[in-house]
Amino acid sequence: MEATHIEHIAIAVKNLNDSIPFYENVLGLKCYSIEEVKDQKVKTAFFKVGQTKIELLEATDPGSPVGKFIEKKGEGLHHMAFAVKGIENSLEEIESKGIRLIDKKPRKGAEGLDIAFLHPKSTFGVLTEFCEKK
Amino acid sequence: MEATHIEHIAIAVKNLNDSIPFYENVLGLKCYSIEEVKDQKVKTAFFKVGQTKIELLEATDPGSPVGKFIEKKGEGLHHMAFAVKGIENSLEEIESKGIRLIDKKPRKGAEGLDIAFLHPKSTFGVLTEFCEKK
Repeated sequence: MEATHIEHIAIAVKNLNDSIPFYENVLGLKCYSIEEVKDQKVKTAFFKVGQTKIELLEATDPGSPVGKFIEKKGEGLHHMAFAVKGIENSLEEIESKGIRLIDKKPRKGAEGLDIAFLHPKSTFGVLTEFCEKK
Repeated sequence: MEATHIEHIAIAVKNLNDSIPFYENVLGLKCYSIEEVKDQKVKTAFFKVGQTKIELLEATDPGSPVGKFIEKKGEGLHHMAFAVKGIENSLEEIESKGIRLIDKKPRKGAEGLDIAFLHPKSTFGVLTEFCEKK
């Protein structure tokens, strides 16, 4: 498999409106999109820095994965995503090497990307995502 | 201030020797350097993907910040670092905006970079680092 760059870093926050000003007014990044991903019960805010997006995640339901993450661990780094070439083949390849997958097949994520998550039990505690723009 | 890209993503692991093979043999990245940073009581392993380094951190002392992090939270995403232009001025600027700094002045980090950490209480739970290669 081939990972080309870090597509995004996702950060769980309690409230987008409270945290967006830090990224804009302090770090000087620009929030270029806010999008709700109903499938994952989150509202997301996107910033770009170099090749990588920062994706803030606010749970729209406290029982959602991001809501539970915040309840358990508080706000903070949630997952990292690699841009990969050939997401289906990459998933097959790593599964054959014993990696546990959350998504065996890609599904649609924010910004229309094909995405799939690897299980953090197979990735030394880091929730890891693959993304491909088709 | 100007952040140009994500310089690195740091991941706390229990043991470099156990986790390096995941990044090499599964994700296809290459560990190009292992370095001890005595100041921070860590051994680090570096990989590069696009503009960004993945930096695995193994504590050399269980009482060190990374050792305590693992004891409390387990292995996982530890901090993210922005490459910035003019690290001293960037720190002054964000401090004047009320951001709490761990390092008011840059110090030397891994790979000879000038680095400084922002306090996660000011950054919505994300331990955030600035880096500059001079």
